[in-house]
Amino acid sequence: MAFDRLVRYEDIEGQVTYGNLLETTEDGLFKVSKLDGNLTEGFTVRTQESEAIVKSLLCPLDRTPIIPCVGVNYQKHVDEAKLPVPSYPVIFSKPADALTGPMSEIHIHPDASSMLDYEGELVVVIGRDAKNVTESSALDYVLGYTAGNDVSARNFQLREASGNQFGYAKSFDGFAPIGPAIYSTRLVPNPQELKLITRVNGHVRQETSTGDMIWTVRQIVAHLSRGMTLRAGTVIMTGTPAGVGFFSQSFLKDGDVVEVELVGLGKIANKMIFEQSSGNESTL
Amino acid sequence: MAFDRLVRYEDIEGQVTYGNLLETTEDGLFKVSKLDGNLTEGFTVRTQESEAIVKSLLCPLDRTPIIPCVGVNYQKHVDEAKLPVPSYPVIFSKPADALTGPMSEIHIHPDASSMLDYEGELVVVIGRDAKNVTESSALDYVLGYTAGNDVSARNFQLREASGNQFGYAKSFDGFAPIGPAIYSTRLVPNPQELKLITRVNGHVRQETSTGDMIWTVRQIVAHLSRGMTLRAGTVIMTGTPAGVGFFSQSFLKDGDVVEVELVGLGKIANKMIFEQSSGNESTL
Repeated sequence: MAFDRLVRYEDIEGQVTYGNLLETTEDGLFKVSKLDGNLTEGFTVRTQESEAIVKSLLCPLDRTPIIPCVGVNYQKHVDEAKLPVPSYPVIFSKPADALTGPMSEIHIHPDASSMLDYEGELVVVIGRDAKNVTESSALDYVLGYTAGNDVSARNFQLREASGNQFGYAKSFDGFAPIGPAIYSTRLVPNPQELKLITRVNGHVRQETSTGDMIWTVRQIVAHLSRGMTLRAGTVIMTGTPAGVGFFSQSFLKDGDVVEVELVGLGKIANKMIFEQSSGNESTL
Repeated sequence: MAFDRLVRYEDIEGQVTYGNLLETTEDGLFKVSKLDGNLTEGFTVRTQESEAIVKSLLCPLDRTPIIPCVGVNYQKHVDEAKLPVPSYPVIFSKPADALTGPMSEIHIHPDASSMLDYEGELVVVIGRDAKNVTESSALDYVLGYTAGNDVSARNFQLREASGNQFGYAKSFDGFAPIGPAIYSTRLVPNPQELKLITRVNGHVRQETSTGDMIWTVRQIVAHLSRGMTLRAGTVIMTGTPAGVGFFSQSFLKDGDVVEVELVGLGKIANKMIFEQSSGNESTL
């Protein structure tokens, strides 16, 4: 693999390019080396003029086919949510347009702001098409790991609003920020040994080890590929630990910044911007 | 619009092309005229050598971004399912690889065959990107309508298997056949006045008017576009009426043929082929 920390950024000529993140400087800049290629063809290191310093990073993927998500995947979150653990992983999904970058502002539709919540999660990015893969080979299909926030408009997730289907409340444009980089399987040989922290305006709200996941990454990838083609670039959100805002009724406000950190790797930080009008309100 | 009945087929030279379905002959062949163009650029009628007779039709779309589905959207189905009607449409989704053609065989993973079921549905195809559209303008974004089957592996939909999330049980490759054509809004000025019939091996199992839908197509499109970009080519399954196999415990068997018909327009007919082995069983 040509990268350890796959990023996307705008170079000095305004071209969006892939790169390998070499270093985050003390003043918050990013030292990167350019990569050629893409997800389908693979990446190669450029031999000349390859290094640069950039101010900000884009979403490490330019697009995704879909974002399958796992619900209630940490026992302490199961306890706070008072939900039973079924015999398979709990699966719902977000559409491609939910994907956004590690530093992007997230614009919240007026109807989605009343009970806005965060869910810090370990995210798995699929590197090549997978179907009917076993648990033992599942990690061979992983491009790498990253941090993500399964942003949720709880007012649409309540049983009386949703009929108990989780997806709609989490499918608004920009409700799936990931990044800052996709960390290679060389850097993360075991995805069940990561520490995950969520902060709101700097205050810790969620803190867990991915070792506490009920269903492991291997099990999730095997389950999602059973009779279903998991396409390269698929972004899997693996579930959130205890500490979401819903159970303490402390929801996100306009201007709040949510950080999700994979300790020792990197973090995303997204500001919530409440829109006053969608321009064209739904009448439902 | 250059078509009334948009289809896809393989021409005499083996090229897959779009066409307008002119007529279905008495011996079950399809008279078509070729169309140039695609969903993004629009379609135009070819002036020369445009007509042909073909034996079979492919899926009228070559791909879709995603397949949002509506649950419990007919009162009689709500009654049989004993499910409450929430304050918004019940939404889940299938991934792009679920899409398949009007005459395609559907290959059933061994783990998905024990409680295999059909759901005949009116399907809406989005013609151009839609976001925050009102109910009054919603139909302006519709390319046309077609018949669809929301194939469901109920063993994975049971609460104790799924945690009550409907999507996974319905997301297997090929679990969303549609067709045979996409019928233009000129042919279908009011989508709430269609008659929908589902047959299994020729026996009627579901029969309804789309006038009985709880949430109309206009309401569904407005709801799905609220703060979320509905992309051109999105396939919306609008919910199934009473009569699915689950409540009579009469599930589909290997070799069964399920037909879903929009009366006066056309029907799909898909044979279920139970696979003996996936080649690589999941161990979950």
